[in-house]
Amino acid sequence: MHCALRGKSPTVTTEKTFTVDPWCLREPEFDLDVLASTEAVLTVANGNLGVRGTLDEGEPVGHPGTYLAGVHELRTMVYTETGNGDPEATETLVNTIDGTVVRLLVDGHPLDVRTGTLRQHERVLDFRAGTLERRLRWRSPGDRCVEVTSTRLVSLDQRGVFALRYTVRALDQPVEVVLQSGLVANVRKPHLPDDPGGEDLLAHALQAVEHGAVGSRLTLMHRTDRAELLVGATAEHEVEGSAGVSDLESSGEADPDQARFSVRARLEPGESVTLTKLVAYAWSGIRGVPALRDELASMLAVASNIGFDELVAHQCEILDDYWESADVEVAGDDELQQAVRFALFHILQAAARAEGHGIAGKALTGTGDEGHVFWDTETFVLQVATAVRPEVTRHALAWRHATLEQARARAHTLDLKGAAFPWRTITGPECSGYWPAGTAAFHINADIADAVLRYVDATDDEQFAREAGVELLVETARLWMSLGHWGRDERFHVFGVTGPDEYSALGDDNVYTNLMMQRNLRGAAGWARAYRESTEPLEVTPDEIERWERAADAVFVPYDEELGVHPQHAGFTDQPQWDFAGTAEEQYPLHSFFPYLQLYRKQVVKQADLVLALFLRGDAFTDEEKARDLDYYERVTVRDSSLSACCQAIIAAEVGLPNLAHQYIVESALADIRDAEHDSSDGLHVAALAGTWLALVCGFGGLRHTYSGRVDAQLSFRPTLPEELPRLRYRLLFRGRLLRVTVERESTTYEVVRGEPLTVRHERDDVELSTEAPVSRSNTLRPEPPMPTQPETRAPGRGTLPDDSSPGAPASAGSFLRRTSRADPEDASGGD
Amino acid sequence: MHCALRGKSPTVTTEKTFTVDPWCLREPEFDLDVLASTEAVLTVANGNLGVRGTLDEGEPVGHPGTYLAGVHELRTMVYTETGNGDPEATETLVNTIDGTVVRLLVDGHPLDVRTGTLRQHERVLDFRAGTLERRLRWRSPGDRCVEVTSTRLVSLDQRGVFALRYTVRALDQPVEVVLQSGLVANVRKPHLPDDPGGEDLLAHALQAVEHGAVGSRLTLMHRTDRAELLVGATAEHEVEGSAGVSDLESSGEADPDQARFSVRARLEPGESVTLTKLVAYAWSGIRGVPALRDELASMLAVASNIGFDELVAHQCEILDDYWESADVEVAGDDELQQAVRFALFHILQAAARAEGHGIAGKALTGTGDEGHVFWDTETFVLQVATAVRPEVTRHALAWRHATLEQARARAHTLDLKGAAFPWRTITGPECSGYWPAGTAAFHINADIADAVLRYVDATDDEQFAREAGVELLVETARLWMSLGHWGRDERFHVFGVTGPDEYSALGDDNVYTNLMMQRNLRGAAGWARAYRESTEPLEVTPDEIERWERAADAVFVPYDEELGVHPQHAGFTDQPQWDFAGTAEEQYPLHSFFPYLQLYRKQVVKQADLVLALFLRGDAFTDEEKARDLDYYERVTVRDSSLSACCQAIIAAEVGLPNLAHQYIVESALADIRDAEHDSSDGLHVAALAGTWLALVCGFGGLRHTYSGRVDAQLSFRPTLPEELPRLRYRLLFRGRLLRVTVERESTTYEVVRGEPLTVRHERDDVELSTEAPVSRSNTLRPEPPMPTQPETRAPGRGTLPDDSSPGAPASAGSFLRRTSRADPEDASGGD
Repeated sequence: MHCALRGKSPTVTTEKTFTVDPWCLREPEFDLDVLASTEAVLTVANGNLGVRGTLDEGEPVGHPGTYLAGVHELRTMVYTETGNGDPEATETLVNTIDGTVVRLLVDGHPLDVRTGTLRQHERVLDFRAGTLERRLRWRSPGDRCVEVTSTRLVSLDQRGVFALRYTVRALDQPVEVVLQSGLVANVRKPHLPDDPGGEDLLAHALQAVEHGAVGSRLTLMHRTDRAELLVGATAEHEVEGSAGVSDLESSGEADPDQARFSVRARLEPGESVTLTKLVAYAWSGIRGVPALRDELASMLAVASNIGFDELVAHQCEILDDYWESADVEVAGDDELQQAVRFALFHILQAAARAEGHGIAGKALTGTGDEGHVFWDTETFVLQVATAVRPEVTRHALAWRHATLEQARARAHTLDLKGAAFPWRTITGPECSGYWPAGTAAFHINADIADAVLRYVDATDDEQFAREAGVELLVETARLWMSLGHWGRDERFHVFGVTGPDEYSALGDDNVYTNLMMQRNLRGAAGWARAYRESTEPLEVTPDEIERWERAADAVFVPYDEELGVHPQHAGFTDQPQWDFAGTAEEQYPLHSFFPYLQLYRKQVVKQADLVLALFLRGDAFTDEEKARDLDYYERVTVRDSSLSACCQAIIAAEVGLPNLAHQYIVESALADIRDAEHDSSDGLHVAALAGTWLALVCGFGGLRHTYSGRVDAQLSFRPTLPEELPRLRYRLLFRGRLLRVTVERESTTYEVVRGEPLTVRHERDDVELSTEAPVSRSNTLRPEPPMPTQPETRAPGRGTLPDDSSPGAPASAGSFLRRTSRADPEDASGGD
Repeated sequence: MHCALRGKSPTVTTEKTFTVDPWCLREPEFDLDVLASTEAVLTVANGNLGVRGTLDEGEPVGHPGTYLAGVHELRTMVYTETGNGDPEATETLVNTIDGTVVRLLVDGHPLDVRTGTLRQHERVLDFRAGTLERRLRWRSPGDRCVEVTSTRLVSLDQRGVFALRYTVRALDQPVEVVLQSGLVANVRKPHLPDDPGGEDLLAHALQAVEHGAVGSRLTLMHRTDRAELLVGATAEHEVEGSAGVSDLESSGEADPDQARFSVRARLEPGESVTLTKLVAYAWSGIRGVPALRDELASMLAVASNIGFDELVAHQCEILDDYWESADVEVAGDDELQQAVRFALFHILQAAARAEGHGIAGKALTGTGDEGHVFWDTETFVLQVATAVRPEVTRHALAWRHATLEQARARAHTLDLKGAAFPWRTITGPECSGYWPAGTAAFHINADIADAVLRYVDATDDEQFAREAGVELLVETARLWMSLGHWGRDERFHVFGVTGPDEYSALGDDNVYTNLMMQRNLRGAAGWARAYRESTEPLEVTPDEIERWERAADAVFVPYDEELGVHPQHAGFTDQPQWDFAGTAEEQYPLHSFFPYLQLYRKQVVKQADLVLALFLRGDAFTDEEKARDLDYYERVTVRDSSLSACCQAIIAAEVGLPNLAHQYIVESALADIRDAEHDSSDGLHVAALAGTWLALVCGFGGLRHTYSGRVDAQLSFRPTLPEELPRLRYRLLFRGRLLRVTVERESTTYEVVRGEPLTVRHERDDVELSTEAPVSRSNTLRPEPPMPTQPETRAPGRGTLPDDSSPGAPASAGSFLRRTSRADPEDASGGD
C-alpha cells in the first residue's frame, strides 16, 4: 500500500489548494471557499459507485453526492415554443443514499471544522492506493483535543462497495466521544447556487420504501418517483478500541430517510477508538424489494468476508496493474506529472466497473450536465481507455449497443433511417432540450462508430465486432445515408447539422462531421463484407454496401481556395469576424455574455472543431494544410470549452510548435486541480482529463493509430518535445502487447514489454519491435512555423496564479482553517 | 342603419356555418361544434376593445374573451437550456372583465340553448351596421316559449364603449322572466384544450380591487398581478317594457369578481321587456384607482348621453364613410365578394381606435399567439390601411416609434447598434422564447421601415416623417449596418438570420431580408438628407449616410446561375429535397409532424418568402425571373401558414396565371369564415384577411406602389382577371385623392372621385387622371406560362366541402341546435 500521507516534503505549487506530488493530490489545509470543488476532485469511485470527497462529519458541505451509475429521476422539460420531436423529459442523476457520514461528538461538542480550533487538516487522494485519507487535529470549544484519521475507498474490485475506517484519538486530556455512523437519504445542498438542471430541481427525489437498524447493520431502501428505480444501501460496522479502551456502548436506530449506528467511548489521552464501516449499494428498475434486499445482503457479506484491510490491499493491486500499462512519466514539469496521473486515476475511477452504463461527462463526481453521457466519452475518454484499459471501451460500447433500439426509435422520430444516438442521456433517450446544439450534432453517431473501429483494431476483439460492432456501424451508416444527400455537383453532402464547436450550429458540410461520416461509411462497408453472417439479420445488401462506398468516396469537404484553409463548415470563412479587440477578458465565456444568435453567425470558435478533424482524420490533410488551418483557427478559437486546449496542443506539436503545445497541455491538465473555470464543483471534466493523456501521448509522443481498413491499420509515431521537457515515457496496450515509448530530445526508444513482435512507423520509417531489445530512432528536428496568434486575452496559460500565493503555509498562525470570503457562521468560535 | 337580419334569401354556400351574403355574415342555425370559432368570427371590436361573439347568456361558451389593447399579464419563460439574451418573461393578452352577460330565467328555467328546444337561432354580423344581431326562439323545459333578440356593438366612435340591447318577448303563454345583466371577471374557458401560451396559463389573472352596484350601475375594478395594470369596467342599464308591461322590479349586487343587475317582469303573450346596457372600459399602468374611477364615470356619462340608438346610428355613419374609400366589388364570385368585405370589416375593427397600441396578429378576437403583434401587421395589414384608412397606419407606426427605447435596448443586448424591434410583443419587449424563429427574423425592422416609407409617400404626411419616421429609418438602418458585413467579394452581406419562411432559419443572405434592408438603407439615406433638422439629435453624419448608400448599392442577392432562380437564401437550392411523395395529407401542417431540424435543412417552404420579395421588391426582378422563381417555389411551398396563399396569388396574377391566382385568393379569403385550419377559435388571421385585399387589388388589380425615393414614387397598374370574374372594382386613397379602379376583361377604368389630378401608370403608359372624367385603357392579354405544380396534396383550393353539406337546412326537424360530435350535457332535455 502506498501511503502518500507521510511522503517526502511536497514541492510548492503556484496554486493554493493542493501541493505537487507525483503520486497523490494533497490538500495541506482546509479551505471552506473551495470546499465544493475539492469534493469533486477528491471523489472516490469505480464507475458504478461514486462518492464525493465530503467531510466525514457531513458538514460543512458544498455539494453532497453519492451516485450510482444509471440511478436517475425524470424531469419534465417545458419549452417556450415546443417543436415536434422535442423530448418531453430529461433524465437527471440523483444523489442517492449517503453512506459516508460519521459524526463525532467530543464531550458534547460536535466536531465541525468551523467551530473550535482546527490545528491540522490534511486530505490526500492517493493514486496508487486508491484511497482518500484524512487527518485532522481539533480542539473543541470545550478545549478537548482529538486527532481524527480516516480512510475511505470505493472498491475497484467489489462494484457496489464503499468502505470507511475512522479513528478518533484523545490527545492531551481524557474525553468522552460519541461516533454516529449513518445512512442518509435526500441530503440536500445547503444553499441553492445558480445551477440549472442539477439536483436542486430534484429535492426529495427519493421516496422511502423501507428502513432498518439491526445491531450494527443499517439499511435504507428508496424509490425514485417518476423513473421508478429502487435503490438500497446497507451498512455493517465494526468498532475497536485501542489497548486500554473499554466501556464501548453502541446502538442503532432508523427512520425512513436516516439510519444511525452510535458508539460511545471514554478515551484517556493517547487512547483511540476505530469504527470500520462497509456499505453495499444496489439498485434496479425491474427487480422488487425482496430481490434487492437479498442482493444487498450478499454484497455486504462478501465485503465483510474480505474485510477492510483486504479491500485496501486489493485496491493497491488493481492500481499497480493499471499503472503498469497506463503510467505516463513526464520529466521536467512536476505539475504536469502529477496532473497526468490525476487524470489517469480519475479515468479509471470513472470507468473501471461501469459495465452496463455509459460514462458521463462528469463521471460520478457531480451532477453537472445532469449526469449525462456525451460524445466526448467516445472521442476522448475511450481513446485513452482503448490504449490503457481496453475492457473499459468494450463495456462502454456494449452499453451504446444496448441502447440501439432507443436510437432507432429516435431516428424514426426525426424522419431518418438507422439509429440516431442521443446527444445527452443517462440510459438512452435523447435528453437535449435545445436541438440546434443537441440533436443536430449528429457527429456523435460517427464518433461512436470511430470508437468501435479503433477498439476492435487495437484489440482484435472480433467477438465484439460480430456481436455488437457491426450493428453499430451499419445502423449509423444508414443514418448518414438518410441525413446526407447527393448534390448537383455529384458529391455527398450533409446540410444543416452541428459540429463539435458549440459556437456554431446548423452549418452545411461541417468538415469534422463529414470526414468522420466518411470513416463511418467506409468502416461499415468493410465490416459488412468481413462479417457477413452478422449483417444478415440487418438485411444489408451488396447494393447498400456499394451505396455506402460511393457516398464515402464522394464526401464533400469544403475548402476556401482564396485563403488556402478549410472552413469549419461551408461558408465559415465568409462569416463576419468576431470583434475580439472589443471583447473584454471578463466577457468570457462568451456564451454567458453574448447571445447564440451572434456567436453562431460569426467567426468565433468555442472549441477545436476543424482542428479536431486535423487530429482524428489527419490522413485527410497534408502537413501544409494542417499548419495553415491551425494558424487560421488559432486566431478565432477562444477555448470556452475544456475540450479545446488538448486538441490544439496535439496539432501544435504536429506542425512543429511543441512549446505552444506545452502551454496548452498545462492549461488543460491543471483545469480541474486548479478549478480554473470555477465549475469543477459540479464535477470533473472527464473528457478533458483524457485530453491530458491525448495531448502528451499524441502530441509530444506523436502517436497516431489509423484503422480505416483492417489491412492498412497501423501505429505511427512522430515524437517531439518542448524545451522544458527532457523526457516523456508512456505505455500502451496494442493487440495483446504492452509497448513502452520513451521520447527524448534527440531520439525515441520503443520497447515491447510483453507480447509478440510488432512493426510500427517512426516518422517515415517502419521499425520492427520485439521483446528482445529496445529500439531507438532519432527524431527529426522540424522547422518551426511562425507562432500563431490567439484572440486578445486568449493566449494559453490562463489560470496560473502569481508565485506569492504559495500553499502549505497555514492561512493564519495556529489555524488550519482557511476562510477568505465566506461570512463566519454564527456558532464559529474564536482563536486558539 | 343596414339591417341584414331581414334581408333577401341567402345564396347557399358549400360550407356549413354561414350563408353567403354580400354585406353580412349570417349564421342561420346554432352549431355547438364550431362555437369557439364563431365567437372569433363574430367578434365586435374597435382596435381598443374587442368582445368575442359569445352568447348573451354566457354559456355554452367556447372561449370567452373581452380584450383591451395593451392589457396583458407577464408570464415567466422557462428554458430547457437558457442562452444569453433570452427574454425572461412574455406578455400575454388577458381576458378582462366580461360585460356581455345577460342571463335569462324563463319561469325559473335558465335560457340555455342546450336545454329545452331551440326553434330558431340566427346571428348576423353586419358589415354596414357594425353590429352583431341575434334572434332566437326557445321553448323552455317548462314549455314556455320566448323570443329573444339582441344587438351588440363596440363603438367605432367611443373607444371604450360596449353596448347591448336585449329584448325578450313572450310568445304563446304568459311568462315570468328574470334578466340578470352582469360584469364578470376571471371568466375561464370551460375546458382546457391543447392550447399552449394562451390564457389557460393565466387563470385568475385579475386581482380584485373594488366592486360596486349602485342602482342600475355596476362597477368592477381589477389589477393584473405581475404586470400591475389597473383595469375597470362600469355598466349602466335601462329597462323598458312594451305597452301593457308593468310590475318591473330591479336590483343590483356585487362581489369582488361579479356585479349583477336583475330585472323581473311578468309578460303576457306578445309583450316584451328590453334591457339596454352600456359598458365603459378603461385601464392604466400608471394611474391610480380614483383616476380610473373618474375616467370610467365620464366615459359612461358620454355614452349614456349619446344613447344606444345614436351609438348605432354613428356606427353606421362611420362605416358608410369607410366603405366609400375601402369597398371592393367582385363580380362573379359571391363568396369572394362576402369574404373581402368580411376582411375589410375586421381590419377596421382591428385598427379603428387602436391608437397607442400595436395591432396584434389576432387583433382583439382571441388569445392565439398570446395576443402578440408581429411583422405581418406592417407588411400586410398596414398596406391595406395605408390605402383605405391611412390614419390607422400613422397610429400603428407611432406606436412602434413609442417603443423605440425598448428596441434600442434590445439591440444593445444583442450586441448590435440602432434598434432591434421585437419579433413578438404586446407593449414593446421581445417576447419570443425561440430565437431562431424569433429574434433572428430581423426583417421585421426593414418591414417597419417599409411601412414608414409607404405611408409617408401615400399620404404626404411630412409631419409624421419628421417627428417619428426619420428616427425609425435611421435606427433600423444602423441595426443593419451592425448586422451586415462586407465580404471579401466587396458586397454587403447579412449572415445567419431568418426570413419570413418559418420552415427555414438562420440562413445567409436571405433575399427578402437583403432587399428589404436595401430599401431601408436607401430610405434612411434619402430621408436623412431631406429632413436634416430631424437627424441632428440622432447625430447622423454625412459619412454615415454615405456608408448606408454604399452598403445599399452593394447588397448581395444570391442567384443560382445553373437553375436560373433565386435561392430563398444562399444555398437553399442546394438543400436536399423534401419527400413530398412520401408525405401524407394528414401530415400537414408539417411542423406538427416533423422536427424543425428536418424542415430547416430541406427545400420545403411554409410560406411565401422569396415570392413575397417578388411582390414587395418587384423592381429588383425581371418578368422572366419572376416567372421562373414562382414556378420553382410553387413546387416546394406547402402553405402551412395563412400568410402564403395571398402572396402566391399576387405573383401568379403578375406572371400571367390569373386562374391559379383566383384559386389561391379563394383559399386565403375563406380561411377564417370556413375555419379551414381549425384554429380560428384562437382568433382571426388578421394579416391573411388583409391578404385578401392585397391579392385582389395587387393581384387582379395589378396595383404597385413604388416609393424607394420620393422623386420616382408612383402608382402603377397592370390588371388582369381570371375567367370567372368579369369585373373587379376597388378604391384607394392616395395623397389626398380618392381613386376608383374598375377592372374588366378588356379594359380598366380609372377615376379620381375626389382630389387633385394624378398621373398613374397603366402597364407601360402614363395616364393622366382627374375628377373630370373616367379614363379607360385596354388591358394587354399576357401569354400564359406553363401551369406550375404544387407538392402532392398541396394544390390550392383546400377547405372546400362537397356541395351536399348545405347550410340553412336545420340539422334535425324542429331544432336549430346542431350538435354532431360533442356528448350531450347531462341537463339537456329531450325533444319538442
